[in-house]
Amino acid sequence: MAAHHASKARLNVGLIGLGRLGQVYARDLSSRLAHTRLAAVSDTDADLAKKTAAELDVPRSFVDPGALLDDPAIDAVVICTPTHTHCDLAIAALERRKPTFCEKPLALSLAASEAVGDAVRRTGTFFQMGFMRRFDPGYAAAKARVEEGAIGTPVVFKSTSRDPYRPSLEYANPASSGGLLVDMGIHDFDLARWFMGEVATVQAVGGTLAYPEMKAVGDIDNAIATLVFADGRLGVIDLTRNGVYGYDICTELLGTSGTIRVGYIRQTPILLMTKNSIAQDTVPYFMERFERAYTLQLQDFVENVRLDRTPPVTVEDGIEALRVAVAATRACQTGQPVALATAAAAGA
Amino acid sequence: MAAHHASKARLNVGLIGLGRLGQVYARDLSSRLAHTRLAAVSDTDADLAKKTAAELDVPRSFVDPGALLDDPAIDAVVICTPTHTHCDLAIAALERRKPTFCEKPLALSLAASEAVGDAVRRTGTFFQMGFMRRFDPGYAAAKARVEEGAIGTPVVFKSTSRDPYRPSLEYANPASSGGLLVDMGIHDFDLARWFMGEVATVQAVGGTLAYPEMKAVGDIDNAIATLVFADGRLGVIDLTRNGVYGYDICTELLGTSGTIRVGYIRQTPILLMTKNSIAQDTVPYFMERFERAYTLQLQDFVENVRLDRTPPVTVEDGIEALRVAVAATRACQTGQPVALATAAAAGA
Amino acid sequence: MAAHHASKARLNVGLIGLGRLGQVYARDLSSRLAHTRLAAVSDTDADLAKKTAAELDVPRSFVDPGALLDDPAIDAVVICTPTHTHCDLAIAALERRKPTFCEKPLALSLAASEAVGDAVRRTGTFFQMGFMRRFDPGYAAAKARVEEGAIGTPVVFKSTSRDPYRPSLEYANPASSGGLLVDMGIHDFDLARWFMGEVATVQAVGGTLAYPEMKAVGDIDNAIATLVFADGRLGVIDLTRNGVYGYDICTELLGTSGTIRVGYIRQTPILLMTKNSIAQDTVPYFMERFERAYTLQLQDFVENVRLDRTPPVTVEDGIEALRVAVAATRACQTGQPVALATAAAAGA
Amino acid sequence: MAAHHASKARLNVGLIGLGRLGQVYARDLSSRLAHTRLAAVSDTDADLAKKTAAELDVPRSFVDPGALLDDPAIDAVVICTPTHTHCDLAIAALERRKPTFCEKPLALSLAASEAVGDAVRRTGTFFQMGFMRRFDPGYAAAKARVEEGAIGTPVVFKSTSRDPYRPSLEYANPASSGGLLVDMGIHDFDLARWFMGEVATVQAVGGTLAYPEMKAVGDIDNAIATLVFADGRLGVIDLTRNGVYGYDICTELLGTSGTIRVGYIRQTPILLMTKNSIAQDTVPYFMERFERAYTLQLQDFVENVRLDRTPPVTVEDGIEALRVAVAATRACQTGQPVALATAAAAGA
Repeated sequence: MAAHHASKARLNVGLIGLGRLGQVYARDLSSRLAHTRLAAVSDTDADLAKKTAAELDVPRSFVDPGALLDDPAIDAVVICTPTHTHCDLAIAALERRKPTFCEKPLALSLAASEAVGDAVRRTGTFFQMGFMRRFDPGYAAAKARVEEGAIGTPVVFKSTSRDPYRPSLEYANPASSGGLLVDMGIHDFDLARWFMGEVATVQAVGGTLAYPEMKAVGDIDNAIATLVFADGRLGVIDLTRNGVYGYDICTELLGTSGTIRVGYIRQTPILLMTKNSIAQDTVPYFMERFERAYTLQLQDFVENVRLDRTPPVTVEDGIEALRVAVAATRACQTGQPVALATAAAAGA
Repeated sequence: MAAHHASKARLNVGLIGLGRLGQVYARDLSSRLAHTRLAAVSDTDADLAKKTAAELDVPRSFVDPGALLDDPAIDAVVICTPTHTHCDLAIAALERRKPTFCEKPLALSLAASEAVGDAVRRTGTFFQMGFMRRFDPGYAAAKARVEEGAIGTPVVFKSTSRDPYRPSLEYANPASSGGLLVDMGIHDFDLARWFMGEVATVQAVGGTLAYPEMKAVGDIDNAIATLVFADGRLGVIDLTRNGVYGYDICTELLGTSGTIRVGYIRQTPILLMTKNSIAQDTVPYFMERFERAYTLQLQDFVENVRLDRTPPVTVEDGIEALRVAVAATRACQTGQPVALATAAAAGA
Repeated sequence: MAAHHASKARLNVGLIGLGRLGQVYARDLSSRLAHTRLAAVSDTDADLAKKTAAELDVPRSFVDPGALLDDPAIDAVVICTPTHTHCDLAIAALERRKPTFCEKPLALSLAASEAVGDAVRRTGTFFQMGFMRRFDPGYAAAKARVEEGAIGTPVVFKSTSRDPYRPSLEYANPASSGGLLVDMGIHDFDLARWFMGEVATVQAVGGTLAYPEMKAVGDIDNAIATLVFADGRLGVIDLTRNGVYGYDICTELLGTSGTIRVGYIRQTPILLMTKNSIAQDTVPYFMERFERAYTLQLQDFVENVRLDRTPPVTVEDGIEALRVAVAATRACQTGQPVALATAAAAGA
Repeated sequence: MAAHHASKARLNVGLIGLGRLGQVYARDLSSRLAHTRLAAVSDTDADLAKKTAAELDVPRSFVDPGALLDDPAIDAVVICTPTHTHCDLAIAALERRKPTFCEKPLALSLAASEAVGDAVRRTGTFFQMGFMRRFDPGYAAAKARVEEGAIGTPVVFKSTSRDPYRPSLEYANPASSGGLLVDMGIHDFDLARWFMGEVATVQAVGGTLAYPEMKAVGDIDNAIATLVFADGRLGVIDLTRNGVYGYDICTELLGTSGTIRVGYIRQTPILLMTKNSIAQDTVPYFMERFERAYTLQLQDFVENVRLDRTPPVTVEDGIEALRVAVAATRACQTGQPVALATAAAAGA
């Protein structure tokens, strides 16, 4: 978090991982963000790295992310690779004292996530966790209104996440995705902590109800998790892969003097009315819903590094959201409530 | 408006006209209204009159409305016959000093409507004009909010009326219906006066755009009328017979510090969401939309008569709404603005 | 269920209990329902019984409900008294072979509810359980669409019930109300069974989060219950007493090819838009929301008795919804999942 | 429209005018658009031109727009200056054979707008008129659905434009703004032509109803214009400066088999529900509503020039929309309908 970044007109960012989301980050870093230069990209697919660099006028491209990290021209790093690689790459970046942004989830295991936490503390290097919903203007507005006291004391947190179709079976495999409650739920568990604080106990139920073929890889397609926060307040999260009508993300904070809801499902503001029917369209998928949040999140990272500010989403946020998600997964598998202290001990 | 009505537990009402709306009034008068007894019905169709009386336990039925009006057991009269008969029936009722409710429009010609006005003044008998929208809880709430100052001073009145399909050609014939701007528009012109006061000038355009067969009877199926009120404020009304998606009635008052809208188009509170689509149903037709307003309107009439109160919708309201509708019709036909003084003079 | 009822023009109904809801039923039975005569009322408050009878032209009033039940002029009985009296009154009515409608919940204990079930079977007498939401046009439309296959197979049931304020502490006392999960939840548990079938396991969490004074009587003000149905499908119900913005009841069925939502929170169809704000009002409380459902439910009861039809909501529906509510209460108290077989055994 | 543009990786654009909208265009041209380089800016305020160039890494800045136009490094020109300068600048650019984009309205007088049309035809140079609503995803989707036949034949066009507050009196002065019906209405008149074709007759009423101080500069703050299209179909447009609740732009096409509405007024997708109130926020002003449309419009211009495509919005569109707006202004002033042939003759 050296002050010298602030003196630069533009922060030179290296981006590791050029998959679907990596491409969006590459575009944002190269053209949409102020005070930013996409100085290098890296991907294990050499052609993809070269092609992306050429298209976006990026000076350097690498196959080996270590080479990117060693490049002294790189001021800061964005990690956007498959989850199982986050831990090693983040630690490598931190050890080189490169300010680092890491896409969610932090890791698949609590042990791995805590290793990153150790590296952050050991190296004293800036680390920002990627939970883009916090940067969505809707969620940000809701947070602001709750903090202003618009609903009194929030007593119940409700959140729903729905994908419009199931992922590939390869992706869904809990060995790589962490399973439904980690892969999809991590965002809702992070929001739960952001709005309400730490979770004490988790209960969960789930099932493979819409896509029986997912049983082959061992994942469920629907789950409901209930949370009791440390102070006794309540939460409930429902997740589904069969939100076939569209991508639907909504959250509610019920308080003692009101309630606030955030979320929308219409894509275009048109209403088609025909015989006995009023029809709207829906949001197709996550990029249509959260494109702006992704951009705002990266801009925030760049400014935090340039201006030597502390990260608004920390490595601890990454660890604790994962801890709840892992506990929920266990609760769902055993049919028994899981107290978070137990989860922490078992996960460590 | 004799005080002796107030002493009766129930007002004995005679209903003239048992068509579509008459049946609804018969049901309301016989079972839904407090302090009311449907004491007689009359219809030129003797079988219909008898059958309705039998079904609803109505003591007497008549073919001749004059016989009903002469019946001393009848305390008050509801007229719900075809428009061209309103004038004579209303005058006959008023001359017998029967408190009278008359369905809209008051008449097809200004001369006929003013003859009723003369009879009201001459006989000093209670007369209430039927404009049921004023009794709709939505419109009533809007009126109350406007009067509380919720939108500052209203400066523009906007209203839309849409039928879900065209009427029969027989019904649509301007000789009996008065044409689109009278038949449908009378409600909106009444609302315009209720919210904004008297109209100074009317412009209108129209066409037979969706149902070419209506040209045969000489009526249009779409029209737009603009109003300049006496104090210079503005209004606009659009009417259509091809609101094919459902029955859609909505009104807006735009003020100096806000705006208020009244209207809805959903029939049941269900939302069906399927692949890339969110669908609601619509209100089929006027009875589904205004059933409660009709009931509240008749209850108000009964209470006004029983408690010797003045009518909230007067014969003048019936005359003046018709005056604007007739002026709009002329404006539409000539393509020229019509000043209401001219209309009044010409109509008289 | 004797066929002779069908031959009567009107069913003579005796109403027991003239509290808040009893007054609504009295009005509906005396004036809004076809083929019905409110022939007698009974209430332990003699003045209330007399006054109500006088106002509504009811021929007879009683203090002792047994006297009403013994009256041979009474064809059928509606029970609308405090819950703890339902069991004895229902059994007394059934033993006299009077077709009976009983307001929800059937009883506070499973044992009492099963005693009513025994009486129904023993006497072979018509018995209809009151769950008015099934008669709400919105819920009925949702049910019809689900059965038509509009959403494929429903896999998750979600339901929310919110009161606009807490009940009196006297009412809230679980000894008389059954506690939040019985008193409020019974409707949602009934809907869960109606849409999805039998429940296998219940989990629940709850707390006294908004009204600390409710701890004095031992009730909670917020709860979340998750259900696993016998075939593995899922459900979640959240209940609150602090829906301070209005009375909010909504339900969703998420299916394999779509989702359907039922519920609304706007009372009047007006929209007030002022500086940077669009505001609507809300439904104040249950009677504004479900008035029509109550009327339709009683009309259905009358027709079922007159036409010798079987009841659409049976005593078993009353027993089983209570069984789930009692199990949810236990799950909430113990923090452990409750399997319904266990609940049934323990409750018996 | 020389093909050599297509061979360049990036189009070098010169931007003339750095006011409020000019700043947005500068940002888009310098960072958000593909295949684009903002090569020069010009503004009569030399400091503003220099400062903007420095901030956005623009190689050259000018005070004299003629110097920018003479710069051989400039491939294409964007004109975003006050309306009264559009004509001369556009003609100067066209005479230098620079492909030109001109912000709306094309001019204040029909004569000036037609001079630009002459220059386009004389020089054979690419000219694209700026009507950004056509590039709004909502309007574009509506247009597509109408063309697919989703509503049958559109028979009535309705459009509403509302500013959240009045402009400065200096801006509002009709001598520079053209008056309400030109300044605000031009967008709606363009949409009317886009969806429905040419206009035959215009009627209009208006008044200074909310901001009496506007009378001093001779402008009105509310107006309603009705249109009869050449084939007899109908349109209505209402405009206000006192949409004090927010910036509200909506349009409806009513057809023979349905209707389509485009527009929205909520800014963030949050709903705040407190005692008897459901509240949303509103769109503050035009940039929040149409930011994306502006970006898409400029990207479209760049691609059209690069790929040698014809402009989707032509100089004729600019002229004809102005012709209707001028006719509406006259109709409003005279209280008489204006036939467009007359307007054209008078305006020429």
